[in-house]
Amino acid sequence: MNILAIDTSSIVATVAVMDRKKLLGEYTINSPMTHSQKLMPIIDELLSTLELSMEDIELIAVSRGPGSFTGIRIGIATVKGLAHGWNIPVIGVSSLEGLAYNITYSKELICPIMDARRNQVYTGVYKWVKHKLVDIIKEAPSSIDKLIDELKQRQEKVIFLGDGLGRYKDDIISSLGEKAVFAPQYVNMQRASSIAQLALDKINGGQSKPENYLNITPVYLRKSEAERQYEEKMKRCSEINE
Amino acid sequence: MNILAIDTSSIVATVAVMDRKKLLGEYTINSPMTHSQKLMPIIDELLSTLELSMEDIELIAVSRGPGSFTGIRIGIATVKGLAHGWNIPVIGVSSLEGLAYNITYSKELICPIMDARRNQVYTGVYKWVKHKLVDIIKEAPSSIDKLIDELKQRQEKVIFLGDGLGRYKDDIISSLGEKAVFAPQYVNMQRASSIAQLALDKINGGQSKPENYLNITPVYLRKSEAERQYEEKMKRCSEINE
Repeated sequence: MNILAIDTSSIVATVAVMDRKKLLGEYTINSPMTHSQKLMPIIDELLSTLELSMEDIELIAVSRGPGSFTGIRIGIATVKGLAHGWNIPVIGVSSLEGLAYNITYSKELICPIMDARRNQVYTGVYKWVKHKLVDIIKEAPSSIDKLIDELKQRQEKVIFLGDGLGRYKDDIISSLGEKAVFAPQYVNMQRASSIAQLALDKINGGQSKPENYLNITPVYLRKSEAERQYEEKMKRCSEINE
Repeated sequence: MNILAIDTSSIVATVAVMDRKKLLGEYTINSPMTHSQKLMPIIDELLSTLELSMEDIELIAVSRGPGSFTGIRIGIATVKGLAHGWNIPVIGVSSLEGLAYNITYSKELICPIMDARRNQVYTGVYKWVKHKLVDIIKEAPSSIDKLIDELKQRQEKVIFLGDGLGRYKDDIISSLGEKAVFAPQYVNMQRASSIAQLALDKINGGQSKPENYLNITPVYLRKSEAERQYEEKMKRCSEINE
């Protein structure tokens, strides 16, 4: 089974092809270009260099969020288009769990943080137990202070990674001191190979299964700015009308 | 400082560009095509998508072996050509240490094994100590039995990875049982991002420094088949002549 995996939940565009035995290839671009410029060209390039076409792909794994709303929408829309065109199932996995997968078999807790703006991060806390990743704190939007308070109550060191570090690394260091470890840059970004492996492991472990592309939806964890503003406006209108 | 990193020590062709703060991009192809077909096209493709040219590269990091003699020669020759043309320094790092870097911050020992033919593997044993990778057993050619005997004397579990598993995984399981852990496929291959990070860490830690391309040589750890046969033939000739 060849899996095509895609992650566009951050500024990074990353695609990979994996079968049940090995990673066949991976292409990752961490540049400021938009995903609509980057994504299809790198999928085309990777498949063509591997001498594969979409006909050889039996499943698409996609990072379903949380993260950049626009990034996730572009990823999911692209996957729906490809899955519709080639009549193949899809599977959505967590972008945060994907990031945690970059730190294979570490002994410390793993805490991916993605900048969610409005003084929040998308985060979760994970740990490898008997070489399986389990979630210790479920993924959610959180203030950095609340996250730090929860981590202070635990004994273990914590490996932080993700684009939220740009803004919150200093806060983490000043609050957690030597308990905080930061992932080196080579693993501090989304990787489609992690998304592919995570999808495969979830299928093999029976926690998730491939589904029709019509059923897959983004997981934003929070309302978008547009929705939030719309609701506030509606609330104000109804208050005026009362 | 932009580093271009290359690893062709196995069947995998992998290139990455990293600066001091982040991985800018990585392109990895694990297909049976030869390195002479794969390598330059994926370097060109990656630089072009990143809107970089060789003028933007200040250092080339290369996996200097051990591994496939032909693969290593193609990698080093390509790097020498690029470094000569663009007048930039190079740094060579161990392919085995690069593989071990894939398993970031794991608690277990890490044992990369690459098939060296003639019933041997190229191997070394590594461990993360305070988030720095140290070598517990130095890289060397070894029979799988000798390696297993050395690992049996240690308490820790061991994470195995590398192309030597294709041939020796069953031997390892039957000798080490539950003490042996196998890297999942998404990290079980050479990655140029690991080579870039390793080079950067060795420069920052003062263990290695960039050098002129004229000084860099492959590290085969063993004589090539051609050299071995030539020496045997010469030995036989001198015995006949005596």
